[in-house]
Amino acid sequence: MEERQKKGGSLVFAVNGERFELPCIDPSTTLLQFLRSQTCFKSPKLGCGEGGCGACVVLVSKYDPKLKKVEDFSVSSCLTLLCSLNGFSITTSEGLGNTRDGFHSIHERFAGFHASQCGFCTPGMCMSFFSALVNADKGNKPNPPPGFSKLTSSEAEKAIEGNLCRCTGYRPIADACKTFAADIDIEDWGFNAFWKNGDSKEMKVSKLPPYDTTKNFNTYPEFLKSESTTNLDSSRYPWYTPVSIEDLQGLLNSNVTENGASFKLVVGNTGTGYYKETQRYDHYIDLRYVPELSIIKRDQAGIDIGSTVTIYKLISFLKEESKINFGSYGKLVSDKLAYHMEKIASPFVRNSASVGGNLVMAQKNGFPSDIATLFLGLCATVSLMTRHGLVKLTWEELLSKPPLDSRIVLLSVSIPFKKDRNSKLLFETYRAAPRSHGNALAYVNAAFQADVSLCQNGFLINYIRLAFGAYGTKHATRAKMIEGYLTGKMLNIHVLYGALKLVKLAVVPEDGTLHPEYRSSLAVSYVFEFLYPFTDAHSALSGGLFNGINDISVEKVFKSSKDGCISQGRKQTLLYSSKQVVESSTEYYPVGEPMKKVGAAMQAAGEAVYVDDIPSRPNCLYGAFIYSTKALAGVKGIQLESNQLTDGVAAVITFKDIPIGGANVGAIRFSDPEPLFADDLVRYAGDRIAVVVADSQRSADVAARMALVEYDTANVDSPILTVEEAVEKSSFIQIPPFLYPKQVGDFSKGMAEADHKILSAEVRLGSEYYFYMETQTALAVPDEDNCMVVYTSSQCPESAHRVITTCLGVPKHNIRVITRRVGGGFGGKGVRAMPVSTACALAAYKLRRPVRIYVNRNADMIMTGGRHPMKVTYSVGFKSSGKITALHL
Amino acid sequence: MEERQKKGGSLVFAVNGERFELPCIDPSTTLLQFLRSQTCFKSPKLGCGEGGCGACVVLVSKYDPKLKKVEDFSVSSCLTLLCSLNGFSITTSEGLGNTRDGFHSIHERFAGFHASQCGFCTPGMCMSFFSALVNADKGNKPNPPPGFSKLTSSEAEKAIEGNLCRCTGYRPIADACKTFAADIDIEDWGFNAFWKNGDSKEMKVSKLPPYDTTKNFNTYPEFLKSESTTNLDSSRYPWYTPVSIEDLQGLLNSNVTENGASFKLVVGNTGTGYYKETQRYDHYIDLRYVPELSIIKRDQAGIDIGSTVTIYKLISFLKEESKINFGSYGKLVSDKLAYHMEKIASPFVRNSASVGGNLVMAQKNGFPSDIATLFLGLCATVSLMTRHGLVKLTWEELLSKPPLDSRIVLLSVSIPFKKDRNSKLLFETYRAAPRSHGNALAYVNAAFQADVSLCQNGFLINYIRLAFGAYGTKHATRAKMIEGYLTGKMLNIHVLYGALKLVKLAVVPEDGTLHPEYRSSLAVSYVFEFLYPFTDAHSALSGGLFNGINDISVEKVFKSSKDGCISQGRKQTLLYSSKQVVESSTEYYPVGEPMKKVGAAMQAAGEAVYVDDIPSRPNCLYGAFIYSTKALAGVKGIQLESNQLTDGVAAVITFKDIPIGGANVGAIRFSDPEPLFADDLVRYAGDRIAVVVADSQRSADVAARMALVEYDTANVDSPILTVEEAVEKSSFIQIPPFLYPKQVGDFSKGMAEADHKILSAEVRLGSEYYFYMETQTALAVPDEDNCMVVYTSSQCPESAHRVITTCLGVPKHNIRVITRRVGGGFGGKGVRAMPVSTACALAAYKLRRPVRIYVNRNADMIMTGGRHPMKVTYSVGFKSSGKITALHL
Repeated sequence: MEERQKKGGSLVFAVNGERFELPCIDPSTTLLQFLRSQTCFKSPKLGCGEGGCGACVVLVSKYDPKLKKVEDFSVSSCLTLLCSLNGFSITTSEGLGNTRDGFHSIHERFAGFHASQCGFCTPGMCMSFFSALVNADKGNKPNPPPGFSKLTSSEAEKAIEGNLCRCTGYRPIADACKTFAADIDIEDWGFNAFWKNGDSKEMKVSKLPPYDTTKNFNTYPEFLKSESTTNLDSSRYPWYTPVSIEDLQGLLNSNVTENGASFKLVVGNTGTGYYKETQRYDHYIDLRYVPELSIIKRDQAGIDIGSTVTIYKLISFLKEESKINFGSYGKLVSDKLAYHMEKIASPFVRNSASVGGNLVMAQKNGFPSDIATLFLGLCATVSLMTRHGLVKLTWEELLSKPPLDSRIVLLSVSIPFKKDRNSKLLFETYRAAPRSHGNALAYVNAAFQADVSLCQNGFLINYIRLAFGAYGTKHATRAKMIEGYLTGKMLNIHVLYGALKLVKLAVVPEDGTLHPEYRSSLAVSYVFEFLYPFTDAHSALSGGLFNGINDISVEKVFKSSKDGCISQGRKQTLLYSSKQVVESSTEYYPVGEPMKKVGAAMQAAGEAVYVDDIPSRPNCLYGAFIYSTKALAGVKGIQLESNQLTDGVAAVITFKDIPIGGANVGAIRFSDPEPLFADDLVRYAGDRIAVVVADSQRSADVAARMALVEYDTANVDSPILTVEEAVEKSSFIQIPPFLYPKQVGDFSKGMAEADHKILSAEVRLGSEYYFYMETQTALAVPDEDNCMVVYTSSQCPESAHRVITTCLGVPKHNIRVITRRVGGGFGGKGVRAMPVSTACALAAYKLRRPVRIYVNRNADMIMTGGRHPMKVTYSVGFKSSGKITALHL
Repeated sequence: MEERQKKGGSLVFAVNGERFELPCIDPSTTLLQFLRSQTCFKSPKLGCGEGGCGACVVLVSKYDPKLKKVEDFSVSSCLTLLCSLNGFSITTSEGLGNTRDGFHSIHERFAGFHASQCGFCTPGMCMSFFSALVNADKGNKPNPPPGFSKLTSSEAEKAIEGNLCRCTGYRPIADACKTFAADIDIEDWGFNAFWKNGDSKEMKVSKLPPYDTTKNFNTYPEFLKSESTTNLDSSRYPWYTPVSIEDLQGLLNSNVTENGASFKLVVGNTGTGYYKETQRYDHYIDLRYVPELSIIKRDQAGIDIGSTVTIYKLISFLKEESKINFGSYGKLVSDKLAYHMEKIASPFVRNSASVGGNLVMAQKNGFPSDIATLFLGLCATVSLMTRHGLVKLTWEELLSKPPLDSRIVLLSVSIPFKKDRNSKLLFETYRAAPRSHGNALAYVNAAFQADVSLCQNGFLINYIRLAFGAYGTKHATRAKMIEGYLTGKMLNIHVLYGALKLVKLAVVPEDGTLHPEYRSSLAVSYVFEFLYPFTDAHSALSGGLFNGINDISVEKVFKSSKDGCISQGRKQTLLYSSKQVVESSTEYYPVGEPMKKVGAAMQAAGEAVYVDDIPSRPNCLYGAFIYSTKALAGVKGIQLESNQLTDGVAAVITFKDIPIGGANVGAIRFSDPEPLFADDLVRYAGDRIAVVVADSQRSADVAARMALVEYDTANVDSPILTVEEAVEKSSFIQIPPFLYPKQVGDFSKGMAEADHKILSAEVRLGSEYYFYMETQTALAVPDEDNCMVVYTSSQCPESAHRVITTCLGVPKHNIRVITRRVGGGFGGKGVRAMPVSTACALAAYKLRRPVRIYVNRNADMIMTGGRHPMKVTYSVGFKSSGKITALHL
């Protein structure tokens, strides 16, 4: 063992061409954490920390010294572990271009197309798009016309899949991206600041900030090519990179994993986006350098996929496969799998997430995986390395076993290409999700395989395999009852109906799953869609669809049957296309003119400074809120996990820390001031109890999440949870008179005049979350003489100032509140931002050290969602024209 | 060995009651570096970094668990190594009191007595004084009247010895300190903001911010008492604390010091104030815990002083000794030594500097030590631990040996108390230095021992020993030629004259020593002073000074002979005393009223924020200038030491880095703009060539100091070094007309009217150094869109702004220059501050990272001293009244 683990080198990589060498590092450090805290490249933003929003996307480039080729791909820097980037080059949006060196045309076109409003998502958008652009231009397509890239407009659109934007509504962004695509109709582009009415097409193209596909952007600096990219020195980094199966096996039997040492097998680490890591591992074993695990083999019998193959690589492979007519079933499967898998997560996740990791998460943790369902439907088998040697199982068998021990390694998964010349093998997959593209888990997914024969009266089902998953089940399952029911039957509408009824019994989400009925009914629709075309063989045949019963034509039935629905996207049509026509007038010139937002290119390049981009201070502490999980309860105490006290936690600040002369106020609203912290009684679930202050945001977040609050519900009324209860108990919020609902017109008269009347109706509003891309954040920096500067991402700095000075009980001139850019607000950075900056200021005041709070997305959603359910009952009368004649609230 | 080095604990200490535990640390880190970079306690300032100014003084407290006693003493935090403070408590001025918790009466009295102007030295002053105060009040003197301490006014004055102040002239500071002394005549206090004319004495005392000697300030927090203060874990800290001679010997024979590992024996580390450390040591061996080295033994034969005994401890011991009449020679020696040693360095250096360290520096490095001379004069012997066992030598023998190997440890030094009842042993010491008190090396020091007998005709010299040191000699030496000449002689004026002529031959400073003749003549005066009283035995006797020839009376001769000169301070009189009377008028009220400077107490408490106190930013770089050592030469290249490139150096910025559109301008003056950097030609010694930018100020300083500049003097004129040469070569500085010298009156007429005339006279001015306490400093923080904030300690921020924007070639609105407090300027923070902030801004602009420059004192003196020698020739006529009637320049 000792011999094997040769002393490796230092962690060396490049960021925007600059060399970084880290002699030692906590192996759980993500690329995003490193970039934002150790470099000046702050364009990658922390939006969700889950690979779910794309605000942190960067380009990662890898050099293959044998092929002398650079591979470029986008990743979520919030999930990518820094140690996995030894020898890699990272490009952020600042690296593409910037104020000093000139912007990249992506930045400039984003700016000109008004594609950056708050700007928080823009650098990530640019990098996702740049990744697509750089890869498209590497391809061997013919050169595009000058100013354009080799990217198609459809690819341009899909490039930003998974990157969320809350301001623009996406169209300006897609338009900016599509300016690089030569196949677009220029008329289809939206408004921009480049063109004047009446510009010819040539003029329009010439006015775009120039892009030259022949001038390659160098994503991988020369100097890095000669740097050793061998394994890291194991005496300094607890990060191992086995380079063979034997190596890996040796490692798993060594002291790295024995004696209670915790270790983690890692490929892309994207799983931590879904399964938040609270544990710290002693060792990491990076599986990417074991050659056997990273290859895809294909022969007539099927495909064998190494477990570390990324989802992106598998899709690319399958797409190439689907072009080869080497057995129509193999082609069909490749085609379907590739199409389906392109809806999994987002490009920047698929680029580093491994197939094996996905499957293991499904097996161990019940991850609602698509791939698990697809492979179950495809009768896949798996190879495992155990302590007792190699084991082969069907994927279905493995799913039914207890969660895999972490010493068992999934080596590969094989998809057999069945071939039976006497019958027709069919395969189809389904998924429905909150968003059709980009980072949404399926409500339910499915993969169906069938072997049918065309008989005189229709289709005979020789064999059928129905796999469902992600609907609120421990893991993907086969609907064997339905399979048994259908096998050997001739399909007709009655048989189908019987099968559909069975689906309702087979696909039953577990308790606690959201929308269970919707999921079940989706499953029904999938089966209907799969089988319905076969119930009416006559019409299918007479419709000319069956020109001879061969593989191709059976496929055609399926394809044609779905072009209108699930398979819609397969045609590579644009996701949306429309023409914008806006009449502008020079009457109020320059109002109405399409002008670039000042600083938009800078936002795109990631140079715009948001609160969390303000460089920290040494000695800075970081805060995280502990919020109530009870709706109404006494608070007896707060207990931190014992090891956290030494793990960087500096203080737990509660209402008791408010200085004498100050007041427990966290926000001012139209109604009563809102307390900063619950005192002895929490008032609602999500109420702030304390802010834990620690030496890193991560320590603070973990400490806050793990804190145990001791509640006391004795002698406390039961909480009021509905409007009705509130009315019953006369528990009202004070609303200032100017906000009282007002009648429209003379109600009786209006009602009399109305053509239509609603005598009593009701609108209910639940809590809401504003979903700004940048969560609530503040930075308080104490200065001399009890003064302080508080940076806040606030829409109302003046009110924040009032609240902070009131809370601390200091003169107004002692506190300076600075708001610069706000990374999205939508109203949510008004009142809801105040407690965050006030708690930050209080902690800084008390501890006399700079304190920063960046509320993580989860806490933000819990704490800062609106909390007053509202019910409005109204009567209204209106004319046929729609004009309201009377309204009574 | 392995067994012996038991695993120790973590480095734990307290700062202002706050617990700090450092799991690992660079052992060369000083307390000041730690406080200023890792805590919010920035009251200790970096003034000189040599223990020479007192701006960094803090109180250090040590707990003796056996005696259950706390020992408090002031130290220079710039010299104190953090690792040596395991289990210690540190109190800074903020810890005494602050804006939030209320100020200490020291702060408030300093404020009220106008004792803080720029405020940079004030926290150190307060801590030096607090150290004296807290120790005085621990003593068992009777309790003072309410409001006062047990400190005497003389002690109060001496408490701030070694703390430099450039603004106040010291009187207000001494006055503020003396307010705590009950023995002072209140009329002797100077102006302050507390009293009104006509206040009674009682009223005056009652108006002072109250001090209560009975309320002890807790300098050592309870929690620390129970913390283990054993040795540090040697696997984490390369810091060893042997606890016995054997332990130490084992360590010196172990792998800690073998195999080329560098190590340093350390006690107080104050030597680094004089010998700048560029080397990094692999290991530190802290000698303070070896009991044998830390004790003083006394018997009839003499005193045996452990080598780690601090100078302060030795003085205290000797002072106690001098009170005991156990043999007048021992008493005499104790008295003389204590008196002399109180002039060595300053209290905050004497508190941690060891006697042994001082002697070893003298032996190894030729340090101009006082103790070495004193001990040479006293026939001291030393014990050394060598590889071959214990060795005893005379100090004189050791001085003559080659520099000690670092494996040889000085264990102790012994002073014999000779006793010969038949003759009289005399001992006297001398020193003269630029300052009589506080941190000034002697021009020459001396220690004389003599054995004289009174004969009928006068005094017979039986034996004499004359030791001189520090005058520009490798080490202290005996003037054996004079000793031989005098021994056996009867003293008379002729013999004395002969001896004095020999002194001129014996005390000859080495080449390159400043003021050699002055030093020689001082030596002459010492010998004269020592022997002269014996040349005239008759008058001495008739003057009633010899009432019987006994030990005491001989001493009295000596004492009385010197009360008027060297021994002046022995009477414990005040260093100065005067009464301030200022007539004030209410005509321009409140102008003329004695009001506290706003923020003075805050300055005293160290909360006032100077440029270097502004918290740094992560990712911040630090700059240090490389300046020319040639007066006029081409610059061919700059070579850094090879290891510095990896040792944190980020860039070397020269004139070539000035952006296109910018200009090589570093300052604007009345004359031509001054270039920021020399281009291909340096113009004077001290000219800025480059700024090295590195990841710490220390790395930058070392890199800049060690940088090799390759000069090319071929084809370069010889430099102009005098005004005369400049005139000859017509090399003039452009002076704007308004600065032209002006004649006074009609010259001919004025001269005719003059009572006295100087027809032609000349004034020459050399270069000058302003000696602000805070050296030149700036911090540049880049912001978005090529903007930048530059903090500068400048007296002319508006000009700095103009220079920076011109240099960078950016719009004026891109740069914001902020000056807050200036830690002393005296004109030197005007033009001379501009190149520093401009270079800082240029580096930050180029590297796009925050850059900070804090010019070290040495570089500051070289670079920013005025550089234009000036000669003015004038004729003047004036009246007897002094009125000038004619002036021609």
